[in-house]
Amino acid sequence: MIYFDNSATTRTEASVLDTYRAVNEQYFGNPSSLHQLGERSRQLLDQSRKQIAELMGVNKEEIVFTSGGTEGDNFAIKGTAMAKKGYGRHMITSITEHPAVLKSMEQLESIGWDVTYLSVDKKGKINLNELKTAIRKDTVLVSLMAVNNETGSLQPLKEVSEVLEDHPSIHFHVDAVQALGKVDLDLNESRIDMAVFSGHKFHAPKGTGFMYVRKGRKLSPLLSGGGQESGLRNGTENVPGNVALAKALRLLLKNKKATNDRLSSMKQSLLNYFSELEKVTVFSPEESAPHIISFGIKNSRGEVLVHALEKEGIYISTTSACSSRKNKSVHSIKEMGHSKEQAASAVRISLSNMNTKDEVEIFKKTFNKVYERLKAIE
Amino acid sequence: MIYFDNSATTRTEASVLDTYRAVNEQYFGNPSSLHQLGERSRQLLDQSRKQIAELMGVNKEEIVFTSGGTEGDNFAIKGTAMAKKGYGRHMITSITEHPAVLKSMEQLESIGWDVTYLSVDKKGKINLNELKTAIRKDTVLVSLMAVNNETGSLQPLKEVSEVLEDHPSIHFHVDAVQALGKVDLDLNESRIDMAVFSGHKFHAPKGTGFMYVRKGRKLSPLLSGGGQESGLRNGTENVPGNVALAKALRLLLKNKKATNDRLSSMKQSLLNYFSELEKVTVFSPEESAPHIISFGIKNSRGEVLVHALEKEGIYISTTSACSSRKNKSVHSIKEMGHSKEQAASAVRISLSNMNTKDEVEIFKKTFNKVYERLKAIE
Ligand SMILES: Cc1ncc(COP(=O)(O)O)c(C=O)c1O
Ligand SMILES: Cc1ncc(COP(=O)(O)O)c(C=O)c1O
Repeated sequence: MIYFDNSATTRTEASVLDTYRAVNEQYFGNPSSLHQLGERSRQLLDQSRKQIAELMGVNKEEIVFTSGGTEGDNFAIKGTAMAKKGYGRHMITSITEHPAVLKSMEQLESIGWDVTYLSVDKKGKINLNELKTAIRKDTVLVSLMAVNNETGSLQPLKEVSEVLEDHPSIHFHVDAVQALGKVDLDLNESRIDMAVFSGHKFHAPKGTGFMYVRKGRKLSPLLSGGGQESGLRNGTENVPGNVALAKALRLLLKNKKATNDRLSSMKQSLLNYFSELEKVTVFSPEESAPHIISFGIKNSRGEVLVHALEKEGIYISTTSACSSRKNKSVHSIKEMGHSKEQAASAVRISLSNMNTKDEVEIFKKTFNKVYERLKAIE
Repeated sequence: MIYFDNSATTRTEASVLDTYRAVNEQYFGNPSSLHQLGERSRQLLDQSRKQIAELMGVNKEEIVFTSGGTEGDNFAIKGTAMAKKGYGRHMITSITEHPAVLKSMEQLESIGWDVTYLSVDKKGKINLNELKTAIRKDTVLVSLMAVNNETGSLQPLKEVSEVLEDHPSIHFHVDAVQALGKVDLDLNESRIDMAVFSGHKFHAPKGTGFMYVRKGRKLSPLLSGGGQESGLRNGTENVPGNVALAKALRLLLKNKKATNDRLSSMKQSLLNYFSELEKVTVFSPEESAPHIISFGIKNSRGEVLVHALEKEGIYISTTSACSSRKNKSVHSIKEMGHSKEQAASAVRISLSNMNTKDEVEIFKKTFNKVYERLKAIE
């Protein structure tokens, strides 16, 4: 079996599951309980927060544990809306964001908020002038993804940071779910106020995640309650999940440079291979994340390719997992200027550090067969 | 070690952790992925939903997976607010609800909603006439807990259901986090529209939970996104957690009657014991959940008793875990008419089906010693 659908979700690391179990057995107390079982849990949770903060180069007070990327995006957007409603009711995002962002924006629009959706160019990037023009006096949030989940496109976060330097009161939120460990993201240096990460995208347990919230930035809780996570994210803490998350992050970033070089060379090898196949179009722009390749076979629907490959034990996606079952159009690829037919042909390979060069070679051999069959269809 | 703090959190069952691990290893695909790994995960998730629905006596379309009790309460309240804002902006709850409810209400008040907080009597129950009087034309939600987490007090849900029969457009939300498996809760027969449950309170993994949402009741998502859980609760599904949750629920309800008889007799044995100790006051009303006993030693602060017992390897709480570290006053006990001093003396024993009668006997012996020491303090 070759699993090339890591941007949909990853297989949890065995050693991370060991940690998860050990914490469940030895630290099951509620961190809010006054007794020593609670205190031990509280300390362990604090240690994990510190580890994550150090790995991310920020303060531990700036790390908030969540249940995943969707919660993080919703919290950043709706939490800003609640906290800043007195200042203004306008937000800016891009047309190719994840549904966790787009649907949150839609919900705000339904209660009277105004949202500007920036377009993207062929590379999937927003236009900085369009951003500058969109900023208004009542703008309270700019929300952009670091890496697009369908194509691997990158947003120019540094340049956006520079634009926003002149607008200190606007929250800058970055959906970094697909970026973690794959592209550089300097939280401390940039103008980013909030960044969202999801555990199951990097071999941590599902139902875990964390967020960066810059010190001093005001957010109203999306989950109100007992005062956990400094009152920002309430609910009994998932201590085993969060400790496992910290461990997975450590493993992800351990050999970051070497891993990314390896991913990049695997991706390049696939791109070289595809470039020789007449009927294959690659949709991922040249400058894109090292682990995502979006491509399609002309006149062949994405689903057909997915199913043909799975018969051979190779698992890839029709672009994002989120849109695939709900039959939504492949929006990023269309927004980048490709035709409806091209978008319908798109599939996504997404790699992780668990994949090997051998798998890439097997993939090519298998793809040859499938391609010969599918390219004949007109 | 004797762990009598199960209302704060429980130890996850070993066999539930086995299931969790097995699912992680064998079903790691994203249920939204089109390929067979996704399809297998989707089917397994669906099966767990069906299991839970059957155990709860409702339809599987009425079960929504969440990250826990706090998320459920927030979703029920804020989701109703969003969905029914056109109808009215008034809600009714009680003064002794969990912070997940009270803080959600406060947040709505801060944006112009009106909330009526019903008082409670000596038994911790609301007054039905007060409820009737509180209902207005613009009331969209009544939110009451089935079992109070600090005292085990019960709300008269049947009677409230009857009152609400005449008001079909009001959502009736029940925080049933402390009630599951302990008191009867007929979701199908009653007027309850939404009920919230939390996994870690019944030996399931932390970070899991589920909700009942009656068919036809409109809620706006708290977590917007990719369309999971019929669009009500978005985000990649925690398949291993949810399968483990279904298993823990099955175990909880397997010998429900026998377990509750055992819990009741353990509680009665403790009540009989306390009734002989002159300086002990029991705060839990006679009619209360079988697993919670709130009590205190006159003139001795709750923390002191908690720490004295933990030295002997017995773990109990100063009422709820949520309020204990944040130094909030023990609100339910005060609202039931007890003095500030009495409330400050309160501690909580909370039992689970993992506890034994032997532990109760050891508790009594140990308590004798501690009591002799503490009662001397004036
Ligand atoms: C870019 C992006 N944002 C947000 C999410 C949502 O994360 P999660 O699945 O953890 O809710 C995903 C993945 O589904 C994603 O790829
Ligand atoms: C009555 C009640 N409601 C809600 C909650 C919140 O549940 P969770 O800890 O799963 O967020 C709790 C427990 O903390 C509770 O006892």
